[in-house]
Amino acid sequence: MKEFEQWNGFEGRLWKEEVNVRDFIQNNYTQYDGDEEFLAEPTDATNRLWGKLQELQKAERAKNGVLDMETEIVTSLTAYGPGYIDEELKDLEQVVGLQTDKPLKRAFMPYGGIKMAEESCRMYGYEPSEKIHEIFTKYHKTHNQAVFDIYTPEMKVARHNKILTGLPDTYGRGRIVGDYRRVALYGIDKLIEFKKKDFDATNRQGMRRGDFQLREEIAEQIRALKGMKEMAAIYGYDISQPAKNAKEAVQWVYFGYLAAVKTQNGAAMSVGRVSTFLDIYIERDLKNGILTEEEAQELIDHMTMKFRMVKFARIESYNQLFSGDPVWATLEVAGIGMDGRHQVTKTDYRFLHTLENMGPAPEPNLTVLYSSHLPENFKKYAAHISVETSSIQYENDDVMRPVWGDDYSICCCVSATETGKEIQFFGARANLAKCLLYAINGGMDEKTHDQVAPEYAPITSEYLDYDEVMKKYDVMMDWLAHLYVGTLNMIHYMHDKYYYEAAEMALIDTDVRRTFATGIAGFSHVVDSLSAIKYAKVKTIRDESGIAVDFETTGDFPKYGNDDERADEIAVWLLRTFMSKLKYCHTYRDSEPTTSILTITSNVVYGKATGSLPDGRKAGAPLSPGANPSYGAEQNGLLASLNSVAKLPYEEALDGISNTQTINPGALGHDEAERVDNLVNVLDGYFDQGAHHLNVNVFGVEKLIDAMEHPEKEEYANFTIRVSGYAVKFIDLTREQQMDVISRTCHTQL
Amino acid sequence: MKEFEQWNGFEGRLWKEEVNVRDFIQNNYTQYDGDEEFLAEPTDATNRLWGKLQELQKAERAKNGVLDMETEIVTSLTAYGPGYIDEELKDLEQVVGLQTDKPLKRAFMPYGGIKMAEESCRMYGYEPSEKIHEIFTKYHKTHNQAVFDIYTPEMKVARHNKILTGLPDTYGRGRIVGDYRRVALYGIDKLIEFKKKDFDATNRQGMRRGDFQLREEIAEQIRALKGMKEMAAIYGYDISQPAKNAKEAVQWVYFGYLAAVKTQNGAAMSVGRVSTFLDIYIERDLKNGILTEEEAQELIDHMTMKFRMVKFARIESYNQLFSGDPVWATLEVAGIGMDGRHQVTKTDYRFLHTLENMGPAPEPNLTVLYSSHLPENFKKYAAHISVETSSIQYENDDVMRPVWGDDYSICCCVSATETGKEIQFFGARANLAKCLLYAINGGMDEKTHDQVAPEYAPITSEYLDYDEVMKKYDVMMDWLAHLYVGTLNMIHYMHDKYYYEAAEMALIDTDVRRTFATGIAGFSHVVDSLSAIKYAKVKTIRDESGIAVDFETTGDFPKYGNDDERADEIAVWLLRTFMSKLKYCHTYRDSEPTTSILTITSNVVYGKATGSLPDGRKAGAPLSPGANPSYGAEQNGLLASLNSVAKLPYEEALDGISNTQTINPGALGHDEAERVDNLVNVLDGYFDQGAHHLNVNVFGVEKLIDAMEHPEKEEYANFTIRVSGYAVKFIDLTREQQMDVISRTCHTQL
Repeated sequence: MKEFEQWNGFEGRLWKEEVNVRDFIQNNYTQYDGDEEFLAEPTDATNRLWGKLQELQKAERAKNGVLDMETEIVTSLTAYGPGYIDEELKDLEQVVGLQTDKPLKRAFMPYGGIKMAEESCRMYGYEPSEKIHEIFTKYHKTHNQAVFDIYTPEMKVARHNKILTGLPDTYGRGRIVGDYRRVALYGIDKLIEFKKKDFDATNRQGMRRGDFQLREEIAEQIRALKGMKEMAAIYGYDISQPAKNAKEAVQWVYFGYLAAVKTQNGAAMSVGRVSTFLDIYIERDLKNGILTEEEAQELIDHMTMKFRMVKFARIESYNQLFSGDPVWATLEVAGIGMDGRHQVTKTDYRFLHTLENMGPAPEPNLTVLYSSHLPENFKKYAAHISVETSSIQYENDDVMRPVWGDDYSICCCVSATETGKEIQFFGARANLAKCLLYAINGGMDEKTHDQVAPEYAPITSEYLDYDEVMKKYDVMMDWLAHLYVGTLNMIHYMHDKYYYEAAEMALIDTDVRRTFATGIAGFSHVVDSLSAIKYAKVKTIRDESGIAVDFETTGDFPKYGNDDERADEIAVWLLRTFMSKLKYCHTYRDSEPTTSILTITSNVVYGKATGSLPDGRKAGAPLSPGANPSYGAEQNGLLASLNSVAKLPYEEALDGISNTQTINPGALGHDEAERVDNLVNVLDGYFDQGAHHLNVNVFGVEKLIDAMEHPEKEEYANFTIRVSGYAVKFIDLTREQQMDVISRTCHTQL
Repeated sequence: MKEFEQWNGFEGRLWKEEVNVRDFIQNNYTQYDGDEEFLAEPTDATNRLWGKLQELQKAERAKNGVLDMETEIVTSLTAYGPGYIDEELKDLEQVVGLQTDKPLKRAFMPYGGIKMAEESCRMYGYEPSEKIHEIFTKYHKTHNQAVFDIYTPEMKVARHNKILTGLPDTYGRGRIVGDYRRVALYGIDKLIEFKKKDFDATNRQGMRRGDFQLREEIAEQIRALKGMKEMAAIYGYDISQPAKNAKEAVQWVYFGYLAAVKTQNGAAMSVGRVSTFLDIYIERDLKNGILTEEEAQELIDHMTMKFRMVKFARIESYNQLFSGDPVWATLEVAGIGMDGRHQVTKTDYRFLHTLENMGPAPEPNLTVLYSSHLPENFKKYAAHISVETSSIQYENDDVMRPVWGDDYSICCCVSATETGKEIQFFGARANLAKCLLYAINGGMDEKTHDQVAPEYAPITSEYLDYDEVMKKYDVMMDWLAHLYVGTLNMIHYMHDKYYYEAAEMALIDTDVRRTFATGIAGFSHVVDSLSAIKYAKVKTIRDESGIAVDFETTGDFPKYGNDDERADEIAVWLLRTFMSKLKYCHTYRDSEPTTSILTITSNVVYGKATGSLPDGRKAGAPLSPGANPSYGAEQNGLLASLNSVAKLPYEEALDGISNTQTINPGALGHDEAERVDNLVNVLDGYFDQGAHHLNVNVFGVEKLIDAMEHPEKEEYANFTIRVSGYAVKFIDLTREQQMDVISRTCHTQL
């Protein structure tokens, strides 16, 4: 392989012969065990640009959350000329590139569904182009239309009744993380060369339709790579060659990411694991004396600013599912290598430090790949950032590393995929709480009285019998698992056909591994309901048609979230059982089924559509988010709650187990130092048990109430909180969502 | 099932419960054993419209063969308002509907390939719309682009060197015959209802991508059916209900066909087996006294006139393959039923009679499904039409009926498909003559010196050894068969994806049977060459690089076309061997491989690209067309030639074995009656041996030469001849093609 002069000073061999960013990192990164003292304050340029961006964000909020929208131009890599945060300040931007021609202006993306693209325009008072309407109705079909063309009536009714919900049939599926680092390390020309080799190699004996699909995809990927070069050229950059210094490396990586967010509106558009990679370039430049720490921080700050600006045009039903305009520009720091070396670098600090230099923000969705073996200094600095900003999340590197290696990226909230080697077919979630009611009611929906599931014999007794319920629930979950996977298979088939992610896949290995993600909603309520049926007495209250619409539960029963084995073993059983059913379904492109316990903010919508449950949750009330115990169920403090969640086996939920906790600052310690120490102890203890994920919020409920009542206060403009799976500006949530957040358990004791 | 009042007087039960046109025909048709005396002369309306159309055709010829082209509107079922042959005469048209808004104006069809669509416009001086260009380059990919995206280098070089040639990657594949009769018998609403039932029924357990594809196709079919109703409404007709009389039946059937030719530009767009079906409606109206014979003939004349008007915009390379602007609006008459009753009706006479009422014409491609058991009167009338017009072809119903039943349609030149139950994936042809040269030359092309096939060891001896040649030829055919099928698999995958024939498939059973057609070119030359190597002495003449570029053959050898078993057994071996190789390739959608010996007029282009052969044919000379013996090889008269061809087993070439013969009128008899009798005898004798097909031309070579030299003479305006697979106006052929036709054997003795 050709040695590029841009590689001078880099070690290693394998990564030069093949596309192998991990090998490059392992051979070249510099561990950092020190503390945060080295970090630099924001530069004047950063302050001015960030100030400008905050003005734009304020204007955006004043305009109901959307500053500007495209109505005439279909998005593409090269649809626009160059765009800047501010024309007058453009020379200050160390990292350039916008999705459209103007900051915060949302692109028009019709391939997922012209109806949705138009609806989102009209929602905000924009009138989309007639010409585009004609093209995408008369000549070019879109993903949404195609999916609805082939759905079965059962799928439609299941979707309508929200036992399957949030399906990516009205928005891009996302959860595909291009290995954007490749752009910097190899340059586009080399990547094209590798893809051409792959194309040739797919010329195998007896090619059939799967091969044809793949060959066409590679052809589209090569087209996208060429498009990226043109896109960069619009900003005056030639990315055909590798990046020669840190500034170029940051810019090249960002161009790779920009290509993704210019062409796709996936629910999650993650950045991936770029921190350690970029640190290598920064270290080289620092060593060579061509970069200062201020400049290094400025690069990271400006790159982060760009991630904070990514926007998509969304429709109402999407906003209800995913509240607060999230993008999931998830970006990881830390983690441990397969060889035992921690991967903390100074740039990991620099990324966390952006939350100080520019204040808290929901994006990028900063994620610490946690292990108790990380350097103490780093753990404390991360805990400090949590205590100060409530903007970051933690995921257990010790449970993920054996499965995904040491170069995985989080492709959404909590789901790992090997960077550049793997993608996920995103699958939203099945409402297992509603499924329990279907088991009781013979497949009839408790809200709409639609016969959604097959008309199995309902339970007709006044009091619920545990064995009978379990038998019927098993059958109903069987039905749901098969319907669910079948529905997703259709969605992914059509997504590939009508809205293929060429720009992202161009930066991923051709011989890609695919997981087939599913998800569970209503988890804690099923667990507690089954516990109630088993340990207490549950009487059904039926309407005229015999449907059980409410339950009267007499007696105590153990609840999930109290480290009580009786409830927690039901939780483990539920996860294992549903996963085992999914495992044996046929999946599109022979992808590997996984599941998650993760609801994002959709717990509110799901709850609205779900009737009363035996655990005491009333009809319409929000479900508990993710794997969180139910509201009010936790009676034994934070640690007992964490212990319950930690019992869920990660290997049965490889797509992730989301847990969101809020701790009163007072409960955590008397001063900053004590709070930091205690939080590190909590994290060490939780993750050493094999738990997967934790969103950490540190504030009291009073602050939330005040922010809800007085969103205009300057201090709340960037007040960020962690919700199930991401971070969000609290004042961007709907009042309903805010009420839900407020009603969740805020731990006042450890 | 609902009884429609439009069905009053019709017998039978099955066809009312399910879509089953064959059952309707079997229960209701009236055999006709009489002669042609009943036939009516053209009406004044027919004469005036046909006169007008002839003027238009003359104007078309004066404009280099294209009267008008669309450049602004993308074709669709409803892209145009109503169009008529002549606005002033429109009330005279008994059957209405044009492909565009004006007669003979060619539609713009970009889905197969925007490049080709634009090229065809520019060829004739039209400038296609920029807007359409943008749509079909920026937003919507086309079939041609997609196929070239995935071809392997080997496929491209094989295509470029014309060992695979005429592949449907630059034009619609065609060869799909919608059962247009269904529109008349059931009306569109009922057909939609049936398709919806099918859609529901495809909801089977464990659906995978093949099922998703099918479901989307059905959804598109239903959309197309709705579109057909709109299209008919533009002409003032409501086709939602069954046709209530003969006039409506003819019109409804034509609307079905019009939907096909408005949306697809397949190389062959056949009409199918409509004659017996329409006769039932005509008989009912005649019996009810609401139709006269003059009116009946007028309906058939006007329908035929419409078939004569179908046009597509083609590019130069297409015209070279398929010379003279053919459409293959193939339409069958006669045949015998499974129950032994012949299916000759008065309407079969009426269709043949159009060649008298309006003179000879190449379209519709009238095909007699022949059997010696057909009524003598009918056989004589058909022979009379052949002698007078040279416009019709004959296919052996006795060999096709056991395979395809008694309701098949010819989907192109000679290939049968069960009407409404089956389609063909069209596959052009492989040049087996060139393949023989590759076997000798180690896979290197004798013209371009490209290494096309794998670099197998070439033959290096001065004289060719039969056993060595046969061994190497077998290996080379293996390579070619696999490459050929692999290439076609890609084409059909992409055709389904980017240019699916929704309107045609809407009139075909959902659970369709698919054959995978391939074809052989250079047949007779391979046979004679192998015979030369076996029975004579063949010396290679090599160029500097060692490639055998010519051959010197010493001594006599038997030739195919003389009823000589030594040559004919090689012919049978060749067919069986190539077919057996095709049989075991994986085929797209598990379609059933078949082959044909049929070159159409492409024998000239194929010949141009093929080097000299051991049989004495020189480099660049046209190949012999179809299964015809080589030019000059036939030394023993027509019957000996026919006997040779008749030995080829139809079951090994289910896609058809095309034979075109020209007989001097003098050789056939001294007067019309004797010629007719003799031709019937020839046909009986030929087909009773199991032969498949015969194109019959009755004229002398002098007439051809005169027509070539004096195309302006009025008598040659509609002078039609049969070429391999279709009929063509002689003066529409290129001079090169005309010379080829002239050089073919014209039998002056039986």
